[in-house]
Amino acid sequence: MEPIVSKRDAGQIVRAAQFRSGVSWAAIAQAVGKDPVWVVAALLGQHALTAADAEIVGGLLSLDPEVREALQMPPYRGSFDSPVPSDPTIYRLYEAINVYGPAIKELIHEEFGDGIMSAINFKVDIERREDPAGDRVVITLDGKFLDYNW
Amino acid sequence: MEPIVSKRDAGQIVRAAQFRSGVSWAAIAQAVGKDPVWVVAALLGQHALTAADAEIVGGLLSLDPEVREALQMPPYRGSFDSPVPSDPTIYRLYEAINVYGPAIKELIHEEFGDGIMSAINFKVDIERREDPAGDRVVITLDGKFLDYNW
Amino acid sequence: MEPIVSKRDAGQIVRAAQFRSGVSWAAIAQAVGKDPVWVVAALLGQHALTAADAEIVGGLLSLDPEVREALQMPPYRGSFDSPVPSDPTIYRLYEAINVYGPAIKELIHEEFGDGIMSAINFKVDIERREDPAGDRVVITLDGKFLDYNW
Amino acid sequence: MEPIVSKRDAGQIVRAAQFRSGVSWAAIAQAVGKDPVWVVAALLGQHALTAADAEIVGGLLSLDPEVREALQMPPYRGSFDSPVPSDPTIYRLYEAINVYGPAIKELIHEEFGDGIMSAINFKVDIERREDPAGDRVVITLDGKFLDYNW
Amino acid sequence: MEPIVSKRDAGQIVRAAQFRSGVSWAAIAQAVGKDPVWVVAALLGQHALTAADAEIVGGLLSLDPEVREALQMPPYRGSFDSPVPSDPTIYRLYEAINVYGPAIKELIHEEFGDGIMSAINFKVDIERREDPAGDRVVITLDGKFLDYNW
Amino acid sequence: MEPIVSKRDAGQIVRAAQFRSGVSWAAIAQAVGKDPVWVVAALLGQHALTAADAEIVGGLLSLDPEVREALQMPPYRGSFDSPVPSDPTIYRLYEAINVYGPAIKELIHEEFGDGIMSAINFKVDIERREDPAGDRVVITLDGKFLDYNW
Amino acid sequence: MEPIVSKRDAGQIVRAAQFRSGVSWAAIAQAVGKDPVWVVAALLGQHALTAADAEIVGGLLSLDPEVREALQMPPYRGSFDSPVPSDPTIYRLYEAINVYGPAIKELIHEEFGDGIMSAINFKVDIERREDPAGDRVVITLDGKFLDYNW
Amino acid sequence: MEPIVSKRDAGQIVRAAQFRSGVSWAAIAQAVGKDPVWVVAALLGQHALTAADAEIVGGLLSLDPEVREALQMPPYRGSFDSPVPSDPTIYRLYEAINVYGPAIKELIHEEFGDGIMSAINFKVDIERREDPAGDRVVITLDGKFLDYNW
Amino acid sequence: MEPIVSKRDAGQIVRAAQFRSGVSWAAIAQAVGKDPVWVVAALLGQHALTAADAEIVGGLLSLDPEVREALQMPPYRGSFDSPVPSDPTIYRLYEAINVYGPAIKELIHEEFGDGIMSAINFKVDIERREDPAGDRVVITLDGKFLDYNW
Amino acid sequence: MEPIVSKRDAGQIVRAAQFRSGVSWAAIAQAVGKDPVWVVAALLGQHALTAADAEIVGGLLSLDPEVREALQMPPYRGSFDSPVPSDPTIYRLYEAINVYGPAIKELIHEEFGDGIMSAINFKVDIERREDPAGDRVVITLDGKFLDYNW
Repeated sequence: MEPIVSKRDAGQIVRAAQFRSGVSWAAIAQAVGKDPVWVVAALLGQHALTAADAEIVGGLLSLDPEVREALQMPPYRGSFDSPVPSDPTIYRLYEAINVYGPAIKELIHEEFGDGIMSAINFKVDIERREDPAGDRVVITLDGKFLDYNW
Repeated sequence: MEPIVSKRDAGQIVRAAQFRSGVSWAAIAQAVGKDPVWVVAALLGQHALTAADAEIVGGLLSLDPEVREALQMPPYRGSFDSPVPSDPTIYRLYEAINVYGPAIKELIHEEFGDGIMSAINFKVDIERREDPAGDRVVITLDGKFLDYNW
Repeated sequence: MEPIVSKRDAGQIVRAAQFRSGVSWAAIAQAVGKDPVWVVAALLGQHALTAADAEIVGGLLSLDPEVREALQMPPYRGSFDSPVPSDPTIYRLYEAINVYGPAIKELIHEEFGDGIMSAINFKVDIERREDPAGDRVVITLDGKFLDYNW
Repeated sequence: MEPIVSKRDAGQIVRAAQFRSGVSWAAIAQAVGKDPVWVVAALLGQHALTAADAEIVGGLLSLDPEVREALQMPPYRGSFDSPVPSDPTIYRLYEAINVYGPAIKELIHEEFGDGIMSAINFKVDIERREDPAGDRVVITLDGKFLDYNW
Repeated sequence: MEPIVSKRDAGQIVRAAQFRSGVSWAAIAQAVGKDPVWVVAALLGQHALTAADAEIVGGLLSLDPEVREALQMPPYRGSFDSPVPSDPTIYRLYEAINVYGPAIKELIHEEFGDGIMSAINFKVDIERREDPAGDRVVITLDGKFLDYNW
Repeated sequence: MEPIVSKRDAGQIVRAAQFRSGVSWAAIAQAVGKDPVWVVAALLGQHALTAADAEIVGGLLSLDPEVREALQMPPYRGSFDSPVPSDPTIYRLYEAINVYGPAIKELIHEEFGDGIMSAINFKVDIERREDPAGDRVVITLDGKFLDYNW
Repeated sequence: MEPIVSKRDAGQIVRAAQFRSGVSWAAIAQAVGKDPVWVVAALLGQHALTAADAEIVGGLLSLDPEVREALQMPPYRGSFDSPVPSDPTIYRLYEAINVYGPAIKELIHEEFGDGIMSAINFKVDIERREDPAGDRVVITLDGKFLDYNW
Repeated sequence: MEPIVSKRDAGQIVRAAQFRSGVSWAAIAQAVGKDPVWVVAALLGQHALTAADAEIVGGLLSLDPEVREALQMPPYRGSFDSPVPSDPTIYRLYEAINVYGPAIKELIHEEFGDGIMSAINFKVDIERREDPAGDRVVITLDGKFLDYNW
Repeated sequence: MEPIVSKRDAGQIVRAAQFRSGVSWAAIAQAVGKDPVWVVAALLGQHALTAADAEIVGGLLSLDPEVREALQMPPYRGSFDSPVPSDPTIYRLYEAINVYGPAIKELIHEEFGDGIMSAINFKVDIERREDPAGDRVVITLDGKFLDYNW
Repeated sequence: MEPIVSKRDAGQIVRAAQFRSGVSWAAIAQAVGKDPVWVVAALLGQHALTAADAEIVGGLLSLDPEVREALQMPPYRGSFDSPVPSDPTIYRLYEAINVYGPAIKELIHEEFGDGIMSAINFKVDIERREDPAGDRVVITLDGKFLDYNW
């Protein structure tokens, strides 16, 4: 049988290939025609690409066939090696939830009633907002409200 | 000495008092004149209120003096009892980071260079966006970019 | 201020009161007019009762006012003291997911595409099925399919 | 000695081979003549196939002999890398138990007496139920009641 | 409402009362007319006593009514505060499983086929066996074999 | 230097070789002339075989020299990958200790005084006991009592 | 019923009482007529005192009757709140085992054969050894060798 | 570049080579001219050998050059795969600290004042003491006292 | 017996009393005549105060006698509730070690040889350094080098 | 595709190459023209080198191209294999935070207000300070103060 590449390994191969190629994530996302956060998450193993998209990315980054295949397989999602992520960029997001999570919950409850913001019917956007005191990262989490509906 | 109330206990007392009083979090935030996420987070123990704000909230919710005092004390932050939060509303935020965190990191890196979105010089906003397919929760995380600056 | 009872403590008080009273969970659910699993979960702290339902249950079980109040407060959900539940009845459910979870995932994916069975738009039913080889517990988990919808 | 393939690795190889071959899990299950959840669980390493079934699947998916052998070996069961599964589809099942587990336990106790639903004398079925508000995943867990029988 | 005693606290109260009273566990088990391991496990919170048995034990140990009640309530089973028990007597049992567990599994499989020894339809016996080289503790675990029976 | 095989890997190789060869564990134990639980535990990496025994087993299962060597090396004992074993057969033993461990401890203390059942001067036996209601697995743990002897 | 004091709480009460009284641990041990490490461990909850010894210590430290009783009850041993102790004095012992444990094991094996140093038939002694380069703590662990004796 | 061997792998290779060679740890330590515990700990990866000592050991055990190199590299110390060691010989040492650690701490404090026994300026000795009731392992931990010295 | 206050509770009482009193930590440290980091650490339970210092602080903050006593008792050190601290101010220090710890180790090794920076013969200083780009926190850790000295 | 080396593996390769080459970390840092702590942290995988710096180091240490590439890739930061680091040199830093972290937090709060010392706009310096009582390691952590700025 042909060799198998796990989605996790494929993600590492894609990162190295993207670095070597000099093609930006933004350009890859544009070539695929989807939002950058979704595309990068998919390439790092969190979503499945279509065969067509895998070919586009595979061509841009000169990926081997078994890597292209891995990109199309259904994912077992989750990126953290341990429950608390150690990378500072990712940790800050965790910290923000650790500090503001209950407040967010109380306000969702007050505004919408008992329920959640879906993480499935959901999208994420990142923008740079210029600010004379230092530019800002603005991350928008946009998910459908789902009420507890027995 | 007078009794001491921990910020964690004060947060539980405030939640019960808010429920009993029927005063909305939005109304409390308006009375204090600050953003709702910040105010609720503070009342749940994640920030310190000023003495004046503690009096305003204490009056609205009929809080005892030692609870008002606890609201003013400097916090030891963090709301999670275990590293992975179990409440579904809060868990979905954790899941979103677990799935999209590395993608967010890659794109921050590409746009800004090596660094983080601050969780200190930071604010959170929640909005309801009406949508015929079901209203949506839109959470905006807005933090200053900090580059690795040795 | 009046005393505060946490939802977790309220759940323990309700269990003891139900045992003392001899009123069955089924009868309580019938009095409230909702499905038994939902009602018992709510009484154990996982959902909020309406004020009317809290009065019905409070009357049946002779609960104090602060317990009735606790039953109405919004829950922070999750029943496990540690990630792996130790009670054998609950553990068997955990074990079933540990053994069959990935198979369930593959088959959901094959039938519905990439997505999840909602645990929010969701209900649970328990039935006894008579069987000459020993009666069987039949638990039906019924949740709306949610596809990954960016 | 011939190379050895662990059941875990065999499961990954089967997943890739199933994806490559385009043969559905349902078709594999039908070829084997057993319930789909059981068959997929077995192929992912949670049950042992008979030699005959391993040949059928091996033929359909062009598996190497040492993979066919691995499929027949007795399993050490359990699919989770950490106590709390991170994949959202599997996590929702965990969450459902975390929220409803104690209620299920109380109702099993009330109906059957002190005991458990076996996870060994046990089967799982998945169905799609059409619903105008969105189709539903219906998972039925069906296990023999075992009472505490000293 | 009358005070509530948890089964865990009741277990601690029973231990102290047994020590104070000087009545042996063996005598308590005999009074109740059941096997000692079952009775002691029940008194420490792992099984429910009948009302009659709770009265017998309550009388022997002068237990308060709310303790007698706790002894009759359905248990949430499990005695370990952390996954690895620290008490040396209990740890030795854990160690024995850690060392011999897989061997036991292989031999159960060989003798009975794929399945488990039930821990529900199960009993435990302890005996002292005199031995000139030092007396021995002989613990017999006796459980019904359950095969994987889909 | 010749290749090195860890005892853990050797255990996996032995399991596969035993499966391939069709030689039962019982037959292997008989060939070696020792108790089956001890022999299987040793082959899975928990005890050291003598050179002679390693040759006997190596011959029966056609093991390579470096596997035979690994079987003779002193073990670092312990089979669990995580503190709570996930395999159901092994988990049931863990559960039994979790439920009955403190009762066993109390009764050992009452009968023998303060001390432990050794897990070193210790043996395990498994038997099948026929029972019209379903055959039973009977596991006997037999260890020397050691008192706290300062 | 009279109040119950756990052995853990009794240990904290003894520590405070010893501090208040100014009576040294050495003097307490001498009054009891046993080795200091054993006596202090017992007073901190790790061994049971005889009634006579509990009276001696209770008199020296003016302990309440329920504390004296707690000192006589059989212990559930183990002092660590988490698997890795945080107090530096105790951590250094943990670190020494983490660094030298395998070497100790290899040398015990070479000298005695496969087995352990008992922690039950065991004693600990602490001495001060004067040294011009700074006095030294000398801790002697003295335990009976137990060989794996099936 | 030449292949790299980690100190952990080197330790495993040394153990196998020592077993194959039949040269005792005591003989290796004597050849090197250092205490056995230190030498074995170093060979298992917890200390760095000098180049000369690595040559001596490398010659005795026929080690490859990259293993000899690994033995000389500075170590990242620590032998435990998980916080609680599972091997019974090593666990007994952990248990002894878990039971006697706080008593040792109290007595160090009483004799020396607030401080620790260094695990750096530290040595370990193992001896066999003959005893008609069974020979004993005597482990001496000898470390410099360090007081809290701000 | 008089009530007992644990050092942990005493630390919380001191924090509240310091907040109520308006006396700064710096002023308390000056009154005691010791370095601020040491004094605050001691008041939060990590060191023992002398009786005289406890009186000075007790007077400044109007502490009850049992709190003053607790401040003098020998500490069991360690402030973290879980291995990874959640408070952002403290977490940043943890993160710095997680990122720079191995580099610090390599450079200590290169400069001093194999050993550690003592955390016992150790002091910490905090200063504010003005900087036009934003003032800086400068923390100096100053500990005696201890070499591995067998 | 060319082989990929992870930053973690690259760090191990660099450590071995530095050892083999005999070039000091200080010399490498000087060649690169940056602070030693930063350079060593980068080489161990915690920062990205520029292409030019990677060439300088690669030349000094004779590193393969894929290692040089790995050194330039953006890092996922964090060095600890488990939350509590086991190496004694690194552990002492962890211990220092565990003991002094809250005191540092209180004093930062008093001097600067509510906020943190950045670990991003941050640098670390190590110096040797001669001292007749034994030379000292002096580590200076210098980070920008960031106030909670909503």
